[in-house]
Amino acid sequence: MPLDPQRTVAELKDLRRLTADENGAQRVAFTPVWVQARQWLRAKLATLPVEVHTDAAGNLWATLRGASPKALLIGGHMDSVPNGGWLDGCLNVMAGVEILRRINEQFAGQPPVTVRLVDWADEEGARFGKSLFGSSACSGSLNMEEARGLRDKQGIALPEALRAVGIDFEKVKDSGVELKQAAAYLELHIEQGPVLLDLGLPLGAVLGTFGVERHAITFRGQAAHSGSTPMNRRKDAFLAAARLGQEIYRIAEWSKTGVCTIGSCTTKPGIVTSVVEECRVTLDQRHLDATALAGMLKDAQEASQRFAQDGNVSVGWERLWRIEPRPFAPALIELCDAAIKETVGRSHRLPSGPLHDAAEACGAGIPTVMMFVQSLHGISHNKIEDTREEHLEQSVVAFDRLASKAMEWVAQGGH
Amino acid sequence: MPLDPQRTVAELKDLRRLTADENGAQRVAFTPVWVQARQWLRAKLATLPVEVHTDAAGNLWATLRGASPKALLIGGHMDSVPNGGWLDGCLNVMAGVEILRRINEQFAGQPPVTVRLVDWADEEGARFGKSLFGSSACSGSLNMEEARGLRDKQGIALPEALRAVGIDFEKVKDSGVELKQAAAYLELHIEQGPVLLDLGLPLGAVLGTFGVERHAITFRGQAAHSGSTPMNRRKDAFLAAARLGQEIYRIAEWSKTGVCTIGSCTTKPGIVTSVVEECRVTLDQRHLDATALAGMLKDAQEASQRFAQDGNVSVGWERLWRIEPRPFAPALIELCDAAIKETVGRSHRLPSGPLHDAAEACGAGIPTVMMFVQSLHGISHNKIEDTREEHLEQSVVAFDRLASKAMEWVAQGGH
Repeated sequence: MPLDPQRTVAELKDLRRLTADENGAQRVAFTPVWVQARQWLRAKLATLPVEVHTDAAGNLWATLRGASPKALLIGGHMDSVPNGGWLDGCLNVMAGVEILRRINEQFAGQPPVTVRLVDWADEEGARFGKSLFGSSACSGSLNMEEARGLRDKQGIALPEALRAVGIDFEKVKDSGVELKQAAAYLELHIEQGPVLLDLGLPLGAVLGTFGVERHAITFRGQAAHSGSTPMNRRKDAFLAAARLGQEIYRIAEWSKTGVCTIGSCTTKPGIVTSVVEECRVTLDQRHLDATALAGMLKDAQEASQRFAQDGNVSVGWERLWRIEPRPFAPALIELCDAAIKETVGRSHRLPSGPLHDAAEACGAGIPTVMMFVQSLHGISHNKIEDTREEHLEQSVVAFDRLASKAMEWVAQGGH
Repeated sequence: MPLDPQRTVAELKDLRRLTADENGAQRVAFTPVWVQARQWLRAKLATLPVEVHTDAAGNLWATLRGASPKALLIGGHMDSVPNGGWLDGCLNVMAGVEILRRINEQFAGQPPVTVRLVDWADEEGARFGKSLFGSSACSGSLNMEEARGLRDKQGIALPEALRAVGIDFEKVKDSGVELKQAAAYLELHIEQGPVLLDLGLPLGAVLGTFGVERHAITFRGQAAHSGSTPMNRRKDAFLAAARLGQEIYRIAEWSKTGVCTIGSCTTKPGIVTSVVEECRVTLDQRHLDATALAGMLKDAQEASQRFAQDGNVSVGWERLWRIEPRPFAPALIELCDAAIKETVGRSHRLPSGPLHDAAEACGAGIPTVMMFVQSLHGISHNKIEDTREEHLEQSVVAFDRLASKAMEWVAQGGH
């Protein structure tokens, strides 16, 4: 059974028929549709001589045992956001299934190293607002205290939702045992951005996932009548926030490859006849380099203080979340680049703005790399998410080449 | 009975005891507390030989008939916003009462021209969101169709609320008859801004009320992932709004004496991980000169289009409200200035940012002027609204001098 990339596309379409409605994919983790998607996946795996089980965190593992216990991991996730796209997460899994078939065939059931496919549980965090659940439990980085208190919109706690699918929340980190023999981690994903599309390239090698600094910034001035308060007497919280709104573009530019986003802005009292007393914005900053990210944050903090001082308002910062950059393994990036060039002639190296389970694998010390395939519209988490079928097929071929190279690399001791 | 400015301050304190609670004044128009305030006012007027009645719009008129039917009007309003200050509106009325007393005494019940005190109904518009109700009905500018549909938070329609206090909504414009002999209109008011405070002056002569252009401006871009979307590919609606937030300060500066305010900003989807797709701000622009106001509006519109184009977003403008500038009568401004100088040595001429009933009197073609007294904190519509008692007393003295000068001016044929 040689690699059949068209089958992967056909299977993704089958999955869409099974788990999407007119608004998009509905495979939200720990819901009946997600359970159904996994049953469908298990049926696919049942035709292979792989051992299948779910770990203590609900991650599903399919293991093709090799001559060496050292394992090449291929990861993805069946879960989607509500009204999601047809590729995000499951392209990764289904490409992995196809590669398992090819490897099984080529090595008559026993490849030189062990190959494992993992379907991480709840990558999206759509229901409980905490992404990378299964992979962070497995890597050990999951904050148990925080996760224990998470509730969905119906008020159901995460531990309760997990119990309903047979998972004991207090034991989810026992899943870490799965990584004992892990020697490399590979993940294919749609880009979810416009970079490859703009370059006219189908595939790219991912340098790592961005570190993220996420803050709420509140400027406080004074409400004052819009008619009776001269401009030079105002303590206008919106003005300071507005200046920051422009400044982040300069900060991103200085950082060369970082990004900064003000995603929300609220104003109080927020009426047409009053100067804004309080303006709260959220700032999301990302960079692949930890030093550069820290510099971006410092620049934004200093700028906000300057604007506050200029405008006679105060400013306060509250950290919402942060994660370190996760630069991928240089040797695997080289292999990924080579696999892409052999498949489509040209490659491009780019960081990943969004987080992925690969960040957790990388954080757990496993040499990691991802491959991106071009997204149309630069859009995901939406039913219009799409990728040209030709590119999907090329991605399966290139990712399979990468798997072969990585197996060889693992067999030779890695590093 | 000579002019007794201390009595005015004492009466204002009495009124506060009667109609305020720990959160401030509660004389919201057409409510029982307002009715009570008016009864208290009527009792004060009952000691004078004045004819008192309410007109078809609920405005209360006290008329001291003079040798000439030509009338000098002195206006104010007993109504307040909820949790309002102790001076806004009722200083005007109580100073008027004191001046009626003085004039009645001086001219033994028959001054050379008729003098009328008017307590306008619902200046604040706090309950139905439409300010200057009584004065705009009287001036004829009230939009009947719009006003007929107004409802308070309990769903009570304005016509119904008026019926409860004996007013037939459909006849409110009959009140216009009251202005037939009006030859001049004077109004004293707290400044509600910081200009006189900054200058260290107790009193100022008002040049007119600002014209106002009030718009909602909506920038529309595209939601995009905060991690995967390069800065140069973004269609960031917040960035365009932020640039406008700074630009309005330049526009106000060019206009010399105008003001511009962005009072509210909302963002969609408004989440930390997405570029802002839609950003809506409100813009309030004011100037005393109609041409300058039109120029400010044009500048803001052009700037918004420039920022939209630069940022690859669209922009739409929606007019929320507008009113023409109402420049006051030059001859009365001179008299006001002189009365202030005679009382406190120095005067200052300034426009009024907030609207006042004087704008409606002026719009009805009556020569009009206002006098401002310094506000502490530059704040009103709040229980901390305050003015030094010394300044309140000076304002009554100066306003009385202005009344004398204006009577003389009316007697000599005005203009």
